[in-house]
Amino acid sequence: MKNIETLHWVGKQDGCLRMIDQTRLPLEFVEIECRDVEAVWEAVKMLRVRGAPAIGIAAAYGVCVGLQTVSNCQDEADFFGRLDEVTDYLATSRPTAVNLFWALERMKETAGQFRGKKSPAEIAAILLAEAKAIHQEDRRICRAMGRHGAKLLADGSGVLTHCNTGGLATADYGTALAVIFAAAESGKRLRVYADETRPLLQGARLTTWELMQRGIDVTLICDSMAAWVMREGRVQAVITGADRIAANGDAANKIGTYGLALSAAAHDIPFYVAAPASTFDLSLADGGAIPIEQRDPAEVTHGFGRQTAPDGVEVYNPAFDVTPARLIHTLISEHGLIRPVTREKIAETIAPTPAA
Amino acid sequence: MKNIETLHWVGKQDGCLRMIDQTRLPLEFVEIECRDVEAVWEAVKMLRVRGAPAIGIAAAYGVCVGLQTVSNCQDEADFFGRLDEVTDYLATSRPTAVNLFWALERMKETAGQFRGKKSPAEIAAILLAEAKAIHQEDRRICRAMGRHGAKLLADGSGVLTHCNTGGLATADYGTALAVIFAAAESGKRLRVYADETRPLLQGARLTTWELMQRGIDVTLICDSMAAWVMREGRVQAVITGADRIAANGDAANKIGTYGLALSAAAHDIPFYVAAPASTFDLSLADGGAIPIEQRDPAEVTHGFGRQTAPDGVEVYNPAFDVTPARLIHTLISEHGLIRPVTREKIAETIAPTPAA
Repeated sequence: MKNIETLHWVGKQDGCLRMIDQTRLPLEFVEIECRDVEAVWEAVKMLRVRGAPAIGIAAAYGVCVGLQTVSNCQDEADFFGRLDEVTDYLATSRPTAVNLFWALERMKETAGQFRGKKSPAEIAAILLAEAKAIHQEDRRICRAMGRHGAKLLADGSGVLTHCNTGGLATADYGTALAVIFAAAESGKRLRVYADETRPLLQGARLTTWELMQRGIDVTLICDSMAAWVMREGRVQAVITGADRIAANGDAANKIGTYGLALSAAAHDIPFYVAAPASTFDLSLADGGAIPIEQRDPAEVTHGFGRQTAPDGVEVYNPAFDVTPARLIHTLISEHGLIRPVTREKIAETIAPTPAA
Repeated sequence: MKNIETLHWVGKQDGCLRMIDQTRLPLEFVEIECRDVEAVWEAVKMLRVRGAPAIGIAAAYGVCVGLQTVSNCQDEADFFGRLDEVTDYLATSRPTAVNLFWALERMKETAGQFRGKKSPAEIAAILLAEAKAIHQEDRRICRAMGRHGAKLLADGSGVLTHCNTGGLATADYGTALAVIFAAAESGKRLRVYADETRPLLQGARLTTWELMQRGIDVTLICDSMAAWVMREGRVQAVITGADRIAANGDAANKIGTYGLALSAAAHDIPFYVAAPASTFDLSLADGGAIPIEQRDPAEVTHGFGRQTAPDGVEVYNPAFDVTPARLIHTLISEHGLIRPVTREKIAETIAPTPAA
């Protein structure tokens, strides 16, 4: 298969962030280079790069790009002032995926450790290394999620997924799709049903493309067909990613996930969510506090090249919904499977108490 | 509001069937004239006219158009041969909506009553009158459904609907939308959520348009948002039409209806189905025997004016699903409300036993 590199740093300290423009897939394979923080912000906002883990990585590199304007300055206060400015700005790009905030916080903490000890240029170099470390860790994390989750999928089964959670949503390999990839690599034959995922069709454009590249049997359906596909007995498991998971297991994910979870429950089909530890927000008691991004009505009314609704129609376009923990059979993290999905089990898996 | 005439007969016996080309709405208002039976077949197949009742009316007029080639012939056998040919042909246009078969059967029965008693020209005139009667009856039926159903919708409530079930799906006024129109006309303030209804976007293109024409508050959502909109407490009732209802109340309707019914059940929101008696197929014990039309994959992969999925992707595109009777709170027919939805209650309402 074609080696997909969702995003990567090009060059040395004065380099740039190069990424696949995912809005152009699958018909065009175009890479763009972000040479200032505004370009990174725009790429995240416009979903040129999307998927919670990939957004986190892009944000980390975005900090590096943003600091290039001050990396040769001698004034520490100027440097840290710019760091705050850049991280605050990137934080406004998309509100729901917590990986964005997690990555920005990690970059700030790393920088803070060296304040007063290293020069701005040295700290800038440390931050680029940190962004690369976040990127590299994500590769390992995705493989681990795949390995842990693969055992949940039976040979010969039908698996339904929503949105895109593959290599394109992460450093590579994916979250929910990693589980499918790992099961397929272990020799299991799977039939995947991919929801097209309106309004932006990440399932139709990206998930089918990734699965076809890997030779995995995939059938595209409209989102509204999922319940019927379950009713017909075509699906034995549903697996999605997540953009933010609260301490009790409530999971925000692409709009439509909640309805899928309800349908899965009605058919006694297990509903799995695969997400790295960086997607958990243990500061939130439950999903009620997760901010839900509202997006441009034009995504619904002018989806793909032409207007498909009357001028001036009112539109409601939430980008995410929240699936309550009780509907999630198992959470799949890089640290292992979390089931049953309880506050206690999440706490001990995601933030383990240091050994006594 | 603009007076919508979904379809109508133009001229005398040698006239034609004129209809709004609904595939062009809402951006273009174009009427087409069907001057041979092939044009009627194509219009039904391609959804230029759609909605179970409107398909039935189109089929009845289609018989009249098809008989124009023999209406001046003197040979009764030729005339009835052509009648069989035309009805058999029209029956192949779409398999799920039973109103199509109901209308064709009614036309054949009417003709049969006059076989040997009237000339082909006279029978052709009787059949055009019969088609106009079916058309006119549908207007009365829609008003009756609206009247019976309106009491189910509370003032100030949110109502979610799927596909298009308004004037465009019927002679005029509609089935499920008739209920909304009648409630609004009685002074109730409603907020309607209209599913866009992939793949052909009848909700986005047609339902929003009809509601806006009548000044009713409507908000367009993607199909995948419906469950979340319910969860947020925005919806107090769900109402759809149907394409075929079995004797036990199982109802085939536009793909996505079943998932909506599951979501409504999960939120204790009543799920209503509005359909005329001609949509009931009492010859089928349950929904398992309803044929489900499979449509062109291109509706999914090239839905919005450009390709949105990889070349060669496998697609599953059922046009309908079946909602089990147990999920339907009330059936709304022109003869009154049917609840609970049981075989007995349906039989007594739809096919009443002649008074002793």
